[in-house]
Amino acid sequence: MTEEVDYAKCLEVALDAAEAAGAEIRDAWHAERDVEYKGAVDLVTATDKKCEDIIFAKLAAAFPSHVLVGEESVAASDGVIPPMTDKPTWYVDPLDGTTNFVHGWPFSCVSIGLTVGKTPALGVVLNPILRETFTAIKGEGARLNGDPISCSKVSDIGRALIGTEIGVGRDEATVSAIMGRVRRCVEVSRSVRCSGSCAMNMVSVAMGRLDAFYEIGFGGPWDCVGAAVIVTEAGGVVLDPSGGEFVCDARRVLCGNASIGPALVDALRGIEDGPLEPRAPR
Amino acid sequence: MTEEVDYAKCLEVALDAAEAAGAEIRDAWHAERDVEYKGAVDLVTATDKKCEDIIFAKLAAAFPSHVLVGEESVAASDGVIPPMTDKPTWYVDPLDGTTNFVHGWPFSCVSIGLTVGKTPALGVVLNPILRETFTAIKGEGARLNGDPISCSKVSDIGRALIGTEIGVGRDEATVSAIMGRVRRCVEVSRSVRCSGSCAMNMVSVAMGRLDAFYEIGFGGPWDCVGAAVIVTEAGGVVLDPSGGEFVCDARRVLCGNASIGPALVDALRGIEDGPLEPRAPR
Repeated sequence: MTEEVDYAKCLEVALDAAEAAGAEIRDAWHAERDVEYKGAVDLVTATDKKCEDIIFAKLAAAFPSHVLVGEESVAASDGVIPPMTDKPTWYVDPLDGTTNFVHGWPFSCVSIGLTVGKTPALGVVLNPILRETFTAIKGEGARLNGDPISCSKVSDIGRALIGTEIGVGRDEATVSAIMGRVRRCVEVSRSVRCSGSCAMNMVSVAMGRLDAFYEIGFGGPWDCVGAAVIVTEAGGVVLDPSGGEFVCDARRVLCGNASIGPALVDALRGIEDGPLEPRAPR
Repeated sequence: MTEEVDYAKCLEVALDAAEAAGAEIRDAWHAERDVEYKGAVDLVTATDKKCEDIIFAKLAAAFPSHVLVGEESVAASDGVIPPMTDKPTWYVDPLDGTTNFVHGWPFSCVSIGLTVGKTPALGVVLNPILRETFTAIKGEGARLNGDPISCSKVSDIGRALIGTEIGVGRDEATVSAIMGRVRRCVEVSRSVRCSGSCAMNMVSVAMGRLDAFYEIGFGGPWDCVGAAVIVTEAGGVVLDPSGGEFVCDARRVLCGNASIGPALVDALRGIEDGPLEPRAPR
């Protein structure tokens, strides 16, 4: 039996945790502009770990029966993600967009999602640099800094702005698959944007900044579970890039407004997926 | 003989003009989030024109002998750019990143550059959404919101973050040329970002957000003259993508920190340039 969940309390605690982590990220962001690349990489690693500890402590204190899965703790366990269960499970990326953080590109965020009965039920994505906080509870709409948001109304893919990423795999087969998809987007859409953060790309769809986004081979469920709720609650669709059902832990996602999402699935049809990329080295 | 120029006064007037235009853009930005795509396109066109008028009025009043070249007025003259002369000449893009403006992607800016004796001598790039104002006078360093900035110190292209754009040309030859260059970047660099604004990409190099950037076939000199001064004054290099000398009105640029700029030229060597894309339809 699925445990009873107090979603209002979940949102309150997740927001508090995201804000605390966001403050750490903001401090480190402004501290690291003077350091060399290696120093920035070390700083992001330390910040990532510290932020996951902060978020886990708050979630564990409020919800001792819930399962916690974080990018950092999974990385520390040889990348093994615990199999999904019906239990309320928090998926946490304390700092999505680490390359952006290292370089000062302002798309880095805290990404927190909750699944209940294996279904995404709540999301918080907080960008401490742009000071944007996206939130959603399933069935209650999506918000940006407290105000309701919705996906764009663009219905012609020729006018659509599509987000994607070029990933981290650099073998021939992976690069060819990625480039095949990017080329198709270039051919059919208005333009393409690469922001460097899966969660930020997804919430950009939720607020109309992008009309659609896809990525195959991103880090893990912590990048997409929370944002998936936010996109769906903003009136968008969240799918597997093949057009099939979105699977939280498949490391594959395509989302968009209700017109452009399916149109992008059609556009990408017939292009080889290529191998699923290895996770980015930490 | 080249006219005597008071650069401090030029910067003061250009900043005032950019701030006035930036306020218009910010107002329109927040007004347009509720309108349909067509309405947003009309709004950006009206804002573009209004901002160019504001900037031209201020520059003409302060510098009656200077030449003014703006993206909007050139578009109104069938795209004919007046030949460059030794006279002090202002190149103005009142709103660089119009697709971003339409979609609410926060990389849109006012771009103002001054050439004297055909050489870029002063630049102001103002992003009214991120509230970032980049300025430089030749020989006096580059600044962001008044504070000195410099390019990144990344020296290994394998760790570099490269900016580029996929442009607007959609014929086979243009798309193939663009994709060939993007693929090379994917192969050699850490990652690629596409922000949708040439001027913002260039100033991102100046402050280390990107390690290098190239684009072939952007709108015109108004997108790059001011930013070229800012990059150079931040310690970076501004070149033709072939590695040759940067030409203000060739619609071709590559810039980067002093290591990654030349490394990117090397990486792109041997890839067909392809035809110069047509300008984006207004």
